[in-house]
Amino acid sequence: MEKKKFIAVIGGSQPSTEEIKLAEAVGRELAKRGAALVCGGLSGVMEAACRGAQSEGGLTIGILPGETRQMANPYVQIPIVTGMSYARNVIVVRSTQAVIAIGGSYGTLSEIGHALQSGIPVIGLKTWSLFRNGKQDNSIILAKNPQDAVDKALELAVG
Amino acid sequence: MEKKKFIAVIGGSQPSTEEIKLAEAVGRELAKRGAALVCGGLSGVMEAACRGAQSEGGLTIGILPGETRQMANPYVQIPIVTGMSYARNVIVVRSTQAVIAIGGSYGTLSEIGHALQSGIPVIGLKTWSLFRNGKQDNSIILAKNPQDAVDKALELAVG
Amino acid sequence: MEKKKFIAVIGGSQPSTEEIKLAEAVGRELAKRGAALVCGGLSGVMEAACRGAQSEGGLTIGILPGETRQMANPYVQIPIVTGMSYARNVIVVRSTQAVIAIGGSYGTLSEIGHALQSGIPVIGLKTWSLFRNGKQDNSIILAKNPQDAVDKALELAVG
Amino acid sequence: MEKKKFIAVIGGSQPSTEEIKLAEAVGRELAKRGAALVCGGLSGVMEAACRGAQSEGGLTIGILPGETRQMANPYVQIPIVTGMSYARNVIVVRSTQAVIAIGGSYGTLSEIGHALQSGIPVIGLKTWSLFRNGKQDNSIILAKNPQDAVDKALELAVG
Repeated sequence: MEKKKFIAVIGGSQPSTEEIKLAEAVGRELAKRGAALVCGGLSGVMEAACRGAQSEGGLTIGILPGETRQMANPYVQIPIVTGMSYARNVIVVRSTQAVIAIGGSYGTLSEIGHALQSGIPVIGLKTWSLFRNGKQDNSIILAKNPQDAVDKALELAVG
Repeated sequence: MEKKKFIAVIGGSQPSTEEIKLAEAVGRELAKRGAALVCGGLSGVMEAACRGAQSEGGLTIGILPGETRQMANPYVQIPIVTGMSYARNVIVVRSTQAVIAIGGSYGTLSEIGHALQSGIPVIGLKTWSLFRNGKQDNSIILAKNPQDAVDKALELAVG
Repeated sequence: MEKKKFIAVIGGSQPSTEEIKLAEAVGRELAKRGAALVCGGLSGVMEAACRGAQSEGGLTIGILPGETRQMANPYVQIPIVTGMSYARNVIVVRSTQAVIAIGGSYGTLSEIGHALQSGIPVIGLKTWSLFRNGKQDNSIILAKNPQDAVDKALELAVG
Repeated sequence: MEKKKFIAVIGGSQPSTEEIKLAEAVGRELAKRGAALVCGGLSGVMEAACRGAQSEGGLTIGILPGETRQMANPYVQIPIVTGMSYARNVIVVRSTQAVIAIGGSYGTLSEIGHALQSGIPVIGLKTWSLFRNGKQDNSIILAKNPQDAVDKALELAVG
């Protein structure tokens, strides 16, 4: 197996229709470009991204919060069972070289924080934006569309 | 020992002079009000808050990221040694009934995300503010000063 | 608060009547000697040890596997909420300077492994004994009774 | 990708020459039988098992204790970066359907405990044997050789 890039796709379990389309397109594009997809392994954005990746023959890894592999969405090929609830968010981001955030709620926000804390680049599609004590923080790199997000993730991938 | 309220104080390890003063005042006020202080156990905002709490006879708990108790700041009375690096952020917030965020960088942001994800109220003093897909998210409750922050934390404390 | 020694008491949630008596006596003795008791925070050996410690005015800390403080036994004064299931076993042992094992099942065995892996002494009362590839491993120090267990734990405490 | 069985190989980082041979043979046999190999991702038994699996075209997953993927042995194809030190032992065993233990020290003992605690079968090759309060515990299933170990692991695999 050649050296793949590992890229996380993060986002909520209750996405909008638009976010689902974005996630699926990001998953397809990552697979076409030979990158492995890492996610939290559940439904919503995570499932859509895995479905997209699998449709193009890509590799999908799900870092699960619960205690059984049965909780993984059907497109996760490598289920990692942490039993650690939200602490698995740390593992999702640390196991990757760049993170693509699509929409998302507070769990996604925690993952953005962990990624930036670890020096892992975060690319955003319709996700959080941040102000620190009143001043805009531009650490989240905005992408125009799924292809642009994958371009930026692969270009900026660390480690 | 009566039933204490457990309140987290979160914030960076390289705070401004103003943030140090705020953290120390928050720690003092928590102690005066009989609350236990939970933090990440290291320097900066964490140390200032513990120092303040200890000066008023309060209880201080430090959830440490590293592998030895020696890393705790000198005002931590109960050092919890996780050896789990940033995953300890989850434990800091989950062990408390409300969180007071003072300034802070990306680690603090991850803790804010974990708290809001878990339904634990977050009170902010000169910290992050959040926009979700362009729309302001007002989940972080703004406090005017340390006393106001402690008032709000004790009033909103869950569980 | 003076510098306390932190000692873990580990053992199963379904102990025999004898194990409950041993655990309660160990808890009482730790409190009399001024040590803080760290445990997994649930029922069985953990609860008996906390009850013993509290009856002598001791400090009790429970590192909980679940997601709420309500799961702690009624004698836990400082509940730490990990939400990490069995991974909290690592934190129980690492937060202490010596471990007293009373009876116990496979969770206790995992804690004995983690303690020995971290160089933390393990004192045993009617607990596991170990053979490594057919050869006895004497790392678990046998105690004759609760007082002897506490004597040895305080004498051998590290860090 | 068809549904693979996920099997852990656990053991020390400083194995004997015989243990290295056993681990490599177990890795080869798992790959021949189409199972994915999960391990702690470092050297010793972990590396030998991954080398064996890769030589037969198998899939290798390393659950790393440290904070960077660079710590993985060269035969790990899927590095999972936990940054959680020994707490990653829990993830190694929970992500699998059976565990093969080869030799090993206290870390391996903790993994055996976590596996048995979670109802995951443990197959042993020259590893720990256990006595519980003086009475032998036969939960570790003895294998005669690497092929026998893999036979038993695949036959007993849960979930």
